[in-house]
Amino acid sequence: MSTASNPNSNSNIAKTPAPPYYAVIFTSERTDGDNGYDKMADRMVELAAEQPGYLGNESVRDSNGVGITVSYWESLESIKNWKENPLHLAAQRKGQTDWYQSYAVRITRVERQYFL
Amino acid sequence: MSTASNPNSNSNIAKTPAPPYYAVIFTSERTDGDNGYDKMADRMVELAAEQPGYLGNESVRDSNGVGITVSYWESLESIKNWKENPLHLAAQRKGQTDWYQSYAVRITRVERQYFL
Repeated sequence: MSTASNPNSNSNIAKTPAPPYYAVIFTSERTDGDNGYDKMADRMVELAAEQPGYLGNESVRDSNGVGITVSYWESLESIKNWKENPLHLAAQRKGQTDWYQSYAVRITRVERQYFL
Repeated sequence: MSTASNPNSNSNIAKTPAPPYYAVIFTSERTDGDNGYDKMADRMVELAAEQPGYLGNESVRDSNGVGITVSYWESLESIKNWKENPLHLAAQRKGQTDWYQSYAVRITRVERQYFL
């Protein structure tokens, strides 16, 4: 196991640097139907990756519509800037009205990590 | 939206208290086949919930075998105690040899949260 950056070169697991850095844990329950969700979700993943301070992303959704997405960031400021991005704000509003039954957003500071 | 504890009473989303508290983000890629995994995974969820300082759990795995489990804890000490639980240590060893192609464990401090 390694405590520094992720040694796996071909993986769904984000290749994060040594801590400290920040993680946003987004846990959600989707409403029924697509309603434009998939296209917007793909666009948001692309757009997030273009933002200053972006370090990586991990995302899983199961067949019951429960999902966890974790995005990794260099700083709280980079998270705040992404939260306030105009296209992202529009997506957040659609999320609240159309796409999610419920969600939790948790802003966290990564203290330690290890990898297999 | 609420910034305090999760208002959703019937949900897959953990009912965490107001921050600060701690989150362990476990992202993993399974090997093929069950090999006793499902039974042990259920047992570990039950056992974790019995530990001092446990606050909740969220877990998703998709059809490709990629999973994210986040467990929530009162303190770093409660996380350390759970990591060193003998039954959990045995499960961790099986995870490294049999169940996971790769994983990341990230120990984080939750600074802020909000809910829909």
